[in-house]
Amino acid sequence: MKNLLLGCILILPLAAGGTLSASPLPQEAIATATQLRDQALAGSGAWEVVESLTTEVGPRLAGTPADARAVAWAVEKFRGMGFDRVYTEPVRFPVWRRGHERAEVVAPWPQPLYVTALGRSVGTGGRIEAEVLEFSTLQDLEAAPEGSLAGKIAYISHRMERMRNGRGYGPAAAARGTGASLAARKGAVAFLLRSVGTDSDRLPHTGTMRYEDGVPRIAAAALSNPDADLLSNMLRRGQPVTLALDIDAGMDGEYESANVIAEVRGRERPDEIVIIGGHLDSWDLGTGAIDDAAGVAITARAGALIAALPQRPRRSVRVVAFANEEQGLLGGFAYAKAHADDITRHVTGAESDFGAGRIYAFSTSAVPEGAREVVEQIAGALAPLGIEHRPGEGSAGPDLIPMAQRGMAWAWLAQDGSDYFDYHHTANDTLDKVEAAALDQNVAAYAVFTWLAAESEVDFGSAPKTPPERP
Amino acid sequence: MKNLLLGCILILPLAAGGTLSASPLPQEAIATATQLRDQALAGSGAWEVVESLTTEVGPRLAGTPADARAVAWAVEKFRGMGFDRVYTEPVRFPVWRRGHERAEVVAPWPQPLYVTALGRSVGTGGRIEAEVLEFSTLQDLEAAPEGSLAGKIAYISHRMERMRNGRGYGPAAAARGTGASLAARKGAVAFLLRSVGTDSDRLPHTGTMRYEDGVPRIAAAALSNPDADLLSNMLRRGQPVTLALDIDAGMDGEYESANVIAEVRGRERPDEIVIIGGHLDSWDLGTGAIDDAAGVAITARAGALIAALPQRPRRSVRVVAFANEEQGLLGGFAYAKAHADDITRHVTGAESDFGAGRIYAFSTSAVPEGAREVVEQIAGALAPLGIEHRPGEGSAGPDLIPMAQRGMAWAWLAQDGSDYFDYHHTANDTLDKVEAAALDQNVAAYAVFTWLAAESEVDFGSAPKTPPERP
Repeated sequence: MKNLLLGCILILPLAAGGTLSASPLPQEAIATATQLRDQALAGSGAWEVVESLTTEVGPRLAGTPADARAVAWAVEKFRGMGFDRVYTEPVRFPVWRRGHERAEVVAPWPQPLYVTALGRSVGTGGRIEAEVLEFSTLQDLEAAPEGSLAGKIAYISHRMERMRNGRGYGPAAAARGTGASLAARKGAVAFLLRSVGTDSDRLPHTGTMRYEDGVPRIAAAALSNPDADLLSNMLRRGQPVTLALDIDAGMDGEYESANVIAEVRGRERPDEIVIIGGHLDSWDLGTGAIDDAAGVAITARAGALIAALPQRPRRSVRVVAFANEEQGLLGGFAYAKAHADDITRHVTGAESDFGAGRIYAFSTSAVPEGAREVVEQIAGALAPLGIEHRPGEGSAGPDLIPMAQRGMAWAWLAQDGSDYFDYHHTANDTLDKVEAAALDQNVAAYAVFTWLAAESEVDFGSAPKTPPERP
Repeated sequence: MKNLLLGCILILPLAAGGTLSASPLPQEAIATATQLRDQALAGSGAWEVVESLTTEVGPRLAGTPADARAVAWAVEKFRGMGFDRVYTEPVRFPVWRRGHERAEVVAPWPQPLYVTALGRSVGTGGRIEAEVLEFSTLQDLEAAPEGSLAGKIAYISHRMERMRNGRGYGPAAAARGTGASLAARKGAVAFLLRSVGTDSDRLPHTGTMRYEDGVPRIAAAALSNPDADLLSNMLRRGQPVTLALDIDAGMDGEYESANVIAEVRGRERPDEIVIIGGHLDSWDLGTGAIDDAAGVAITARAGALIAALPQRPRRSVRVVAFANEEQGLLGGFAYAKAHADDITRHVTGAESDFGAGRIYAFSTSAVPEGAREVVEQIAGALAPLGIEHRPGEGSAGPDLIPMAQRGMAWAWLAQDGSDYFDYHHTANDTLDKVEAAALDQNVAAYAVFTWLAAESEVDFGSAPKTPPERP
């Protein structure tokens, strides 16, 4: 109710006055948006898409045979959805390979630990034994004197905080990304961290990390959260605790995967594109249901609903299933590089990559005066879905960051991520965590946003700019 | 409030009339029970005991080096709790060994599966590949024609139901116990089942099984529940599904462990015993926090509170940490055999082996006329803890079944098991699943029951009878 009111308050003066923009959307366009919304809520078919990808492909770590199976699956699935065109664009990247991973407490209280190697980590080169030293945060590790970790395993026990918007992820993921090299600079032989996750299950969270140039590369792995509790409880007793680690992992050649693209061709301005999508790859531990079969399914079904309308929208709609998001937005960067000259043609876009929870908020990048009324119309059409307009918040979805860095306008359809980090990057990312009705609400929101943005003629603010240099 | 009223209604007429028994407990005994209850609720120390066992020993599969460490831990821990005597009694059993366990779908949609071998299962003798056939229930498998499973893997997809009293366990565990031999009789080369558990985590539930004589022994394993969903979803598509299994497990020699016993010696009738306890062993996947460090901690701390009273109870209190419950109540059977001539000396008893949830009900085996009033007094003293008296319900705890079969009277202190089977027999059975305040309530209940039963002089109905023959 609060959301409904908000939508009305924002729209009414504009609709009455009509002075802010020359091109509000006509009532027929809004009526079509309402129809798309109701159709999606009545059963969007998104759950069936997630079921299909997780069952018939399952885990699809970039660069593995399952990556190729996922691309073939997406091409075939999209072809069956009524798009005008389905095609692929190549994405090349170095391959990371996970072998085995074993960890145990050797002394003083021997017992096994549940760990998983972080993405792009090297192995331990066989079984190593070393004393473990705990740091509460990345900052504490940073403060450790040079050389003080010689021959030791560094362990960061930082606990991620549960929040609807997932904002607890940043500080926790920072330790995952940079902890190993920081520890290695001080002499450590391996790096462990408490999983970047909010659950209390015996399933460690993987995720990507990176090595600093010129620093020895040491193995990096995450303990499940109950194992992190256990290790901290042991260390609290004050005796030295020795762990054994045996991790086999590493980089292994190059691979060419593909972004899979499905298009609805615009009836008046086919060269102008509203881009939506998710990423097709997943980590290898789970079946990638929430990360990100859900996003692929939501945006593909939203696109398919638009493709099934009697009339095409003015502008084209492009649904992209991005390759290898997990190891550094490789599909997103490849897309941005291939389309570097087309930034202004991508009038706006949104990626779904935050699980399978309902959408509760909408916003966009800075709105030019001429687009303000249309953005308010979109917000008004989203309001009955329980979606609040929150100007000034949000960001581009991960695979659209490279396009946003080059100046593309974006929209944010914020999913409730309260339980996202219970399952994220673990074996527990499976179909049972996905609720069909929540996906339907997402499809409704994407269909409404995408349709109205593509049916409009306004400039949402895309304008070329120089992207930052890639690390 | 409802419970409080129930207690009062039951007690008042008896207390007023006093005609049913010659020996109600005096008000001082009830006052001491109240004092024990309040002490326990103020902080029983049980959580610390669970923390100690799970941290300093961890998983303690019967017959492994951790079994011996657990016995040493219990002896030392009990010695520090003020008991009059701590000692061990030997328990011999065959050793089951878990090696590796791997499973994957080979065709048509290759992906790994998370499985765990059932306790006492043999291995597959290397990697085997076979088509899988699904049965909804044990009964459906039973109905399959002879020979119809030749060369196949049989898979039972029965889903356990969540219930506070855990009654969904029986039907599900029946398939676990007998499914392998049933499948083997029809020609199957391996047996799989959906985990006997109520969770949806990627952590399979182990548990013991048994082979029929004269039937080929085939490997038996449980799929995690999301993996069972996945396999059923694949099979529903109607194409043959081929799995690969590589399980290394089997029986390996004999081992002598021990029941660890702590006693408070009765001041008037030291030869009469109220026996309480839990089991010290656990499965190997988790750290056995809820199964059954909790039971050991609850009963040991209840006994310790009684040991700390200025006066000993009339009768002795015996706290037993039983060996190897998981693989067939081996510690319980050993205890019953060793004490077969002392059935009537064991006046009553209760085991805590249903997790770490609060106690909501109390009952006993058939109450002789002369004990009725004391049982009502115990129920009345338990009522303020939110514990209802439910005559006619319940059973002896697992390790006391062998004593109950020989005629020992028993009590039932029913824990809320709503989430017990989310974690039971999985890697997820860890300290974080245990709430200190719930353990305190359990200790309060055990202290009240044990104290009042030991302070009383009535006969609760123990009388020797012939136990059934062991399978």
